[in-house]
Amino acid sequence: METTPLSSSERTKLGRKAQRGSTDRADLYAVLDAGLICHLGLVVNDYPRVIPTAYGRDGDTLYLHGSTGSSALAAAEGRQVCVTVTHLDGLVCARSVNNHSMNYRSAVIYGEARVVTDESERLRALRAVTEQIIPGRWAGAREPNRKELAATAVLAVPLTEASVKSRTGAPIDQEEDYELDYWAGVIPVSLVFGEPEPDSVLPVPEHIYARSGHTLSG
Amino acid sequence: METTPLSSSERTKLGRKAQRGSTDRADLYAVLDAGLICHLGLVVNDYPRVIPTAYGRDGDTLYLHGSTGSSALAAAEGRQVCVTVTHLDGLVCARSVNNHSMNYRSAVIYGEARVVTDESERLRALRAVTEQIIPGRWAGAREPNRKELAATAVLAVPLTEASVKSRTGAPIDQEEDYELDYWAGVIPVSLVFGEPEPDSVLPVPEHIYARSGHTLSG
Repeated sequence: METTPLSSSERTKLGRKAQRGSTDRADLYAVLDAGLICHLGLVVNDYPRVIPTAYGRDGDTLYLHGSTGSSALAAAEGRQVCVTVTHLDGLVCARSVNNHSMNYRSAVIYGEARVVTDESERLRALRAVTEQIIPGRWAGAREPNRKELAATAVLAVPLTEASVKSRTGAPIDQEEDYELDYWAGVIPVSLVFGEPEPDSVLPVPEHIYARSGHTLSG
Repeated sequence: METTPLSSSERTKLGRKAQRGSTDRADLYAVLDAGLICHLGLVVNDYPRVIPTAYGRDGDTLYLHGSTGSSALAAAEGRQVCVTVTHLDGLVCARSVNNHSMNYRSAVIYGEARVVTDESERLRALRAVTEQIIPGRWAGAREPNRKELAATAVLAVPLTEASVKSRTGAPIDQEEDYELDYWAGVIPVSLVFGEPEPDSVLPVPEHIYARSGHTLSG
C-alpha cells in the first residue's frame, strides 16, 4: 500500500474548486486503473498537441507505447509531457444554465517522458499497457517477437507530479433558483462493454468475458 | 450542407496509418457532434497542459467556456490551442499482443483561441455548449443573468485546421498468426446514459428522457 502523497507544484496546484481535488496517491491510482485511454499532451514546434492513446501503470510509473515511426511519440521522447485520464460519470442539470456541470473523475500528470531502453522493463511496460485494457490478455495472445519489439517505442512517465479532481452528486443551484419551475437532476453516464464479437472459431476465453462483463454462457 | 474540405497543414497531415484519416468536413462534424467533452491542450510556461472540458459547435466554430477565474482558460486566450475529441468504440484483440488496437473516432483541431466579446455571440456560444450536452436544455433552464455572464469567459476556435481519424472492424493479424491457438475479436465499448436521478419534484422533462434514452413512462 503506497502512502507517499502526490507532490505539490505550481503545475498541480488547483485553482478553482480546489475542494474537488485530492493529493491522495490511492485516488490517483484508482482513476488511472479504471481507464482505457489517456490524452497525451505535447509541445511540438511551440504548439500544443493532444493525442488519445493507450497507457499502462506499473507501480508508480505510467507507460506509453507506440510505433517508432510515430511522430507524436518521437516528439515526447525525453520531453515534458502531460497525461490526462478522464472518466465522465454524469451530466449535472441545474435549474440555471450557469450551474450546469458534469460529474467526473480526472487525473493530470506532468513529467518528463523517459525513453525505456532496458529490454526487461520494456516487456514489463508492454505487459502493463496490455493488461490495463484487458486483464489477463497478455497470457491470451502471442508475445511480441524481436522484430516487433524493435519497431516499438516505450516511454515512462513518473507518477510524481499529478493532480486528481472529481465531482459527484446533485446540482448546486443559487438559493433563489430552487423555486423556479425548471427540473434539475443528474443523468448518469458510464462506459459499457458489449457482447464480444469473435474473429475466431475458438471459444471466447474467460478474460474476454470478464472484461466485457458478460458471463460465460453454458 | 458544408462542402469545404478540411485544410491540410503540417500539423494535420497524418503520418502513420494515414488511411484511417478523413478530410471530409462532415466527418469532423459527426465526431464533434457526438461528443460530450473534449481535451484542451495548451502550452503554459513552455509546458504542455491537457484539461478535460465541455464544448459546443455552432457552424464552423467550436466554442469553449469557463470561469473568468480559470487559469487554463486564461492561458488559452488568444493563444494556439489543440482540442481533441475521442470516442472509444471497441477493444480490438488480435492473436498477437503487437496487433492489439482500439476502434475509435477522433478529431484533433488546431487553432488560435479567440476571446469572444460580442454579447450576442457569447450567448450563442453558451447555448451551443449547453445544447451540445443535452439538446433542448437551454430552454429547460434559467438563462445566464448579467452577473453570471460577467464571470464567464468564452473562447472560439475556428474549425479550419483539423484532422479526423477512425478505426473500425476486426483485428488484423500477421498471416502466420491466424493459425495460432489464441482467440481474437472485438469487445464493443460505448458510453451509455442511465435513468435520470431527479433533484426536483417536477416531472422529468422530455429533453432529459430523450438524452438519457429512457422513454417517458405513463
